[in-house]
Amino acid sequence: MRTISLLTDFGTRDPYVAAMKGVIASRTGAQMADLSHEIPPFDVLGAAFFLRDAAPWWPPGTIFVAVIDPGVGSARRILAAEHNRHLFLAPDNGVLHFFLDDARVVSVENESLFLPNGSNTFHGRDRFAPVAAALANGLPLRELGPAIVDPVRLDYREPSYGREVKGTIISVDRFGNAITDVAAARVGFPPAARVNGSTIDRLERTYAGAADGGPFFIVGSSGRLEISMANDSAAERLQLRRGDPIVIQPRS
Amino acid sequence: MRTISLLTDFGTRDPYVAAMKGVIASRTGAQMADLSHEIPPFDVLGAAFFLRDAAPWWPPGTIFVAVIDPGVGSARRILAAEHNRHLFLAPDNGVLHFFLDDARVVSVENESLFLPNGSNTFHGRDRFAPVAAALANGLPLRELGPAIVDPVRLDYREPSYGREVKGTIISVDRFGNAITDVAAARVGFPPAARVNGSTIDRLERTYAGAADGGPFFIVGSSGRLEISMANDSAAERLQLRRGDPIVIQPRS
Amino acid sequence: MRTISLLTDFGTRDPYVAAMKGVIASRTGAQMADLSHEIPPFDVLGAAFFLRDAAPWWPPGTIFVAVIDPGVGSARRILAAEHNRHLFLAPDNGVLHFFLDDARVVSVENESLFLPNGSNTFHGRDRFAPVAAALANGLPLRELGPAIVDPVRLDYREPSYGREVKGTIISVDRFGNAITDVAAARVGFPPAARVNGSTIDRLERTYAGAADGGPFFIVGSSGRLEISMANDSAAERLQLRRGDPIVIQPRS
Repeated sequence: MRTISLLTDFGTRDPYVAAMKGVIASRTGAQMADLSHEIPPFDVLGAAFFLRDAAPWWPPGTIFVAVIDPGVGSARRILAAEHNRHLFLAPDNGVLHFFLDDARVVSVENESLFLPNGSNTFHGRDRFAPVAAALANGLPLRELGPAIVDPVRLDYREPSYGREVKGTIISVDRFGNAITDVAAARVGFPPAARVNGSTIDRLERTYAGAADGGPFFIVGSSGRLEISMANDSAAERLQLRRGDPIVIQPRS
Repeated sequence: MRTISLLTDFGTRDPYVAAMKGVIASRTGAQMADLSHEIPPFDVLGAAFFLRDAAPWWPPGTIFVAVIDPGVGSARRILAAEHNRHLFLAPDNGVLHFFLDDARVVSVENESLFLPNGSNTFHGRDRFAPVAAALANGLPLRELGPAIVDPVRLDYREPSYGREVKGTIISVDRFGNAITDVAAARVGFPPAARVNGSTIDRLERTYAGAADGGPFFIVGSSGRLEISMANDSAAERLQLRRGDPIVIQPRS
Repeated sequence: MRTISLLTDFGTRDPYVAAMKGVIASRTGAQMADLSHEIPPFDVLGAAFFLRDAAPWWPPGTIFVAVIDPGVGSARRILAAEHNRHLFLAPDNGVLHFFLDDARVVSVENESLFLPNGSNTFHGRDRFAPVAAALANGLPLRELGPAIVDPVRLDYREPSYGREVKGTIISVDRFGNAITDVAAARVGFPPAARVNGSTIDRLERTYAGAADGGPFFIVGSSGRLEISMANDSAAERLQLRRGDPIVIQPRS
């Protein structure tokens, strides 16, 4: 049985997610799972990183529906992509950035799949939901629309691994860990960096590993370096925000 | 298979929703779906509008359980209603307002369906959950209690459509859109209004459609007029709150 | 069919819960249910009370996975416990405190069940999720690891019932009710207490029962005394916080 996994920036206070789920339940017996509805409004970059970390763990055949779009209702295309036996449905705004390289991508233009008399303002309910249900019911990707080769990509630069390693803080999680995009496996150990006037040059194996205080590096759950503090928010203490650059120094 | 769809003001930080779900899972194999648990505490009006927008999208047979009640445990009745092949279970406080006109409504008084030794303080777990499970298992509505004709209604007035159109802002969503109850189809286009000293006289087709700033009207996902701003909160900028009146002027 | 019920302090903004669910869905067809992901970060005591109130309502065979751990990745053991036909999977940090007395408890040490090449930092995904799936697929508890008799307990003292009753405020819920651990059935009625300079000596049957204002006692949904105010937050008004002691006086 296929699962439809939902990722939105809708929150759950408003009826938007509930309406989407209703449309899906009306058209397919597939299971639904909530990935998150707490992506900050319009945060395409955050949703892209979320999907990169979460999607690979799901079973083959999972259908990911990601509705995060400041431009909903505009001329923006809706994309359907097949990547590594997963299906993705998302606006053409970069949210699928990390899956595009090896993906088969189509532009969803088969309007017979949309809700009749749909709105301009709620494509999640009127277009994404019925198309997701159709995919769950077995409709092949090619029935959705023409293949495309020019999907929108994020304005995001992968880290550079030279004598210095230059990366970016890509998210701050609920615990205050500042998560970089730097692959721990490609950095000299222990890593050292200066960030906003603080030197970080310790590496710990666990978040609780440095109870004496002070920030440290840790290898996070996706193999990337994080800046952390035991029982405290490293991001708050060090004034770290997403998008901040980080330069990791070679040890002398 | 029937689905039991849950709407509460409980949040998920406390164990209330988890206990309700446990009672349901103990008594039926029906699926459960979360509509929302983030209705603001005691916001009956908000829950009523939520249901109005979300419920119609669900398949026939869906059982909606709405537990939002400042008067839980008091003499307040519990209602079960059948409307358009949907079933609703809710306190008799107006939360079902928009479904009452064409509904068959009973007062749930068959105490043999409640949990034995239930509390006065948690009817969601002790009454709503087991009754919802019984409905999912096929119990007919008439077994729940006597039909009634005097359900409580909201203190809410539908908009009036005269030379001027007089409506109300019925919600402010997560994106800061101020949603009115005015049906766009019944207003001269483009609509114009003065709200808290600002004139709004543009109509856009999409939320991103007016990137040059300034508030505009847009036809929302349920066909009602909304006041919006591109990438900004119209409600915050214009100091709009639920309950505020709005008068839409005829264009001269 | 077994259900895997999830309780974490992860929130849903980050991809942690979504990754856990993916691992479970990849390994079992069992249903998943969200109990809560809004336990405050690292709040082991709060999670223990949450489980105490919610778990008993679930059907036999339910598998509860509670991942709240300031010491994840450290030498902390993972426990699996069988209690009253429920299965629990949790860190050995006290979160299972209220179920330990009559439970069969093992230390989860069978590393063949963990994800290969798992991280040190995300045991929820790499250890709890695959072990939960294995249990759902029927693996007996004894296959997980050796029985233990020394699980960690909470630093928590049950109330004492003497001439005075001495208890503790164990939580403040979303509605501002201050929930004590004092069993209402063991207190003289009506109870009276002085709390932060206020006297509380009324008992009401419903939260709405004292609309004239002022705090009152009420017997909560688990049979414990709560301090409440009609349509107001008793906790905020009386400056009550979890951990505050409460002494209930005998009526003269």
